[in-house]
Amino acid sequence: MIRTAQTFASPVVQAKGWINGISFPPDRPLIDVSQAAPVDLPPEGLRQAIADAALNDPGAHLYGPVLGLPELRHEVATRFSASYGSDISAGQVCITSGCNHAFCAAMMSLTGEGDEVILPTPWYFNHKMWLDMTGVKAVPLPAGAGMLPDPDQAKALITDRTRAIVLVTPNNPCGAEYPAGLIASFRDIARAAGIALVVDETYRDFHSVSGAPHDLFTDPDWDDTLIQLYSFSKAYRLTGHRVGAMVASPARLKQVEKFIDTVTICPNQLAQRAALWGMRNLDQWLAGERDEILDRRAAIAEGFPVLADKGWKLLGAGAYFAYLEHPFERPSVQLAQDMVGAVGVLALPGAMFMPEDYPAGQRQLRIAFANVDRDGIAQLYDRLAGLRPALSALVPNRVSS
Amino acid sequence: MIRTAQTFASPVVQAKGWINGISFPPDRPLIDVSQAAPVDLPPEGLRQAIADAALNDPGAHLYGPVLGLPELRHEVATRFSASYGSDISAGQVCITSGCNHAFCAAMMSLTGEGDEVILPTPWYFNHKMWLDMTGVKAVPLPAGAGMLPDPDQAKALITDRTRAIVLVTPNNPCGAEYPAGLIASFRDIARAAGIALVVDETYRDFHSVSGAPHDLFTDPDWDDTLIQLYSFSKAYRLTGHRVGAMVASPARLKQVEKFIDTVTICPNQLAQRAALWGMRNLDQWLAGERDEILDRRAAIAEGFPVLADKGWKLLGAGAYFAYLEHPFERPSVQLAQDMVGAVGVLALPGAMFMPEDYPAGQRQLRIAFANVDRDGIAQLYDRLAGLRPALSALVPNRVSS
Repeated sequence: MIRTAQTFASPVVQAKGWINGISFPPDRPLIDVSQAAPVDLPPEGLRQAIADAALNDPGAHLYGPVLGLPELRHEVATRFSASYGSDISAGQVCITSGCNHAFCAAMMSLTGEGDEVILPTPWYFNHKMWLDMTGVKAVPLPAGAGMLPDPDQAKALITDRTRAIVLVTPNNPCGAEYPAGLIASFRDIARAAGIALVVDETYRDFHSVSGAPHDLFTDPDWDDTLIQLYSFSKAYRLTGHRVGAMVASPARLKQVEKFIDTVTICPNQLAQRAALWGMRNLDQWLAGERDEILDRRAAIAEGFPVLADKGWKLLGAGAYFAYLEHPFERPSVQLAQDMVGAVGVLALPGAMFMPEDYPAGQRQLRIAFANVDRDGIAQLYDRLAGLRPALSALVPNRVSS
Repeated sequence: MIRTAQTFASPVVQAKGWINGISFPPDRPLIDVSQAAPVDLPPEGLRQAIADAALNDPGAHLYGPVLGLPELRHEVATRFSASYGSDISAGQVCITSGCNHAFCAAMMSLTGEGDEVILPTPWYFNHKMWLDMTGVKAVPLPAGAGMLPDPDQAKALITDRTRAIVLVTPNNPCGAEYPAGLIASFRDIARAAGIALVVDETYRDFHSVSGAPHDLFTDPDWDDTLIQLYSFSKAYRLTGHRVGAMVASPARLKQVEKFIDTVTICPNQLAQRAALWGMRNLDQWLAGERDEILDRRAAIAEGFPVLADKGWKLLGAGAYFAYLEHPFERPSVQLAQDMVGAVGVLALPGAMFMPEDYPAGQRQLRIAFANVDRDGIAQLYDRLAGLRPALSALVPNRVSS
């Protein structure tokens, strides 16, 4: 079967299609909480640094090393060593064209046709899509209490085709921050089974816990099991630049190098310079960004009673995301589409984050709240609280679209 | 089998390894003709345009459409329609993170595990690597007279697993410009078999023929068979920016969108703005670049008698490449490594462009001459003419490295 036909259309692309042709009144614009992306620009100093590199740094326009700019690999190694109390070397870091690219590369170095990878659900749909396209079975591990996956349950899912367990923490879509002990348990299980533990920390800079969110890197043998993925997009508002990283063993990076060379040859050079400048100059600014995100997260929790009164549940909140259970009978994909016309809110349905036949997904919605300030969150909640009457008032033929 | 283990290490990376630890005298620096990449910077106006976008264009830093910047898709459609005498629409164009990325995306939309794709040899190694990693059998179609592939021979190789024939014209590595009639014959064969014809025109801007190099786009039904790939890297010296394009049917681009969304989310935004500025402003400059490349190509041919005298043959020359047959008994990979120490020349061996057991590859070398001016080509030839005595003088333990 043709590879792209083995998976579904991008949920973000599908959702953007739902707002086509719908006009929103100026006094009640669309609230788009569908995509986890900053909409504000990088700070001026960073934009200036990119402009300066474009004008004055010859390397900014030329091919560079497949595994990334040496200075940036070194910077990541040094900074992450400090953050995690470890001794990560530049040879254990590579730079990628965004964190999705890092995930794809990692999987290509771990799996072959017919292999299996354990993904907690709700999962990040692009992970599922890549596994689908490359003929790898995504084995779902449903979240339990607190939206946390259970290591023992994961252990029971391991077969002789299992090649990795993937954790996303803080989690996309459900916002859960996995406790350090839980992550270590997964590492132990993965190591005992001789498989990899892939930890996607795209949202690490917005973790509510100050200090290291796990101690995996303090183990001197970490790289026999652990592969860490990271994105510069969220911390420095560089989504359009496509730059991320992978931290793994040098032997794995040798394999990853084949994939990167073949798919993109090297990461974008200006993007790498932007990430480097950000790491070197934006600590204080990023601390402020984190404070703001944590304040928005607090607003999500504080305002929730207005929705709880209407039968909603807050299943998780953290990083950029709130994960909600809605009180309606209709399937979540239909609900998410209907919400656009009914209350002018675009959010992704839970069904997009797990197998279609999971009932839980039909009752869930992801709210990517990072771009919505306290006032906006109040408005969002106000609209959702009025969703039941608004749905009833919808013209039926919109509902079935 | 693990996907990255199904293929070899990047030839460019391998070759860069051969110069590690070797010092070259200042009066006789390394002549690096291993990679097809401009080393000069984009013109100042383009660098300024990138800097301006970084400072003033908010979209330059944010996620954009998966299939690329609408203005750039439109520009490619309009320009290519004019070039090829066609009516290509923006909906038939997508922008990718370089031309390799476009190839990978095209293949993901055409093939599944165990399928076959016909690649003329010598092939572009990254094409082979992607097919290897995705479990697709690359079926070699050895070049015949003039380094041209034979359509009838291709036809005989088609099986019920064949999904595409891939042509690269002007060709990497051998520089051949495929005649329009030959390309059309391949299209006819592909169409009759219900498979795709993929034409990689990365080097189209340096084709020696002015005007359309083929008439495939004049067929109103072109997109039932043809997929064209393009790179902005060579024309505008944007290798470090990673931006290319695919021209194909809207239905195929829907499939390609899944791949791009999953691997890179969207192309780099500044890179797309750079490509757009280049297309709108650099025609005259690019005409001069083409003149220079064509002059270097002429120098390759004019100077060749000095090598012919030593038993070398010029098998092909065009775009950025000369493809040579060397007169030595040793395998080409060994010869290429030995050349570094013996005469300070880094070139890629023919064996990297075809199956290991093809004798032809052992006698061939690719010279990427785009960065070497007339004087440099004379020096290169001078060194290669002295290769036999220089090899004899080599310390034996260097030879075996």
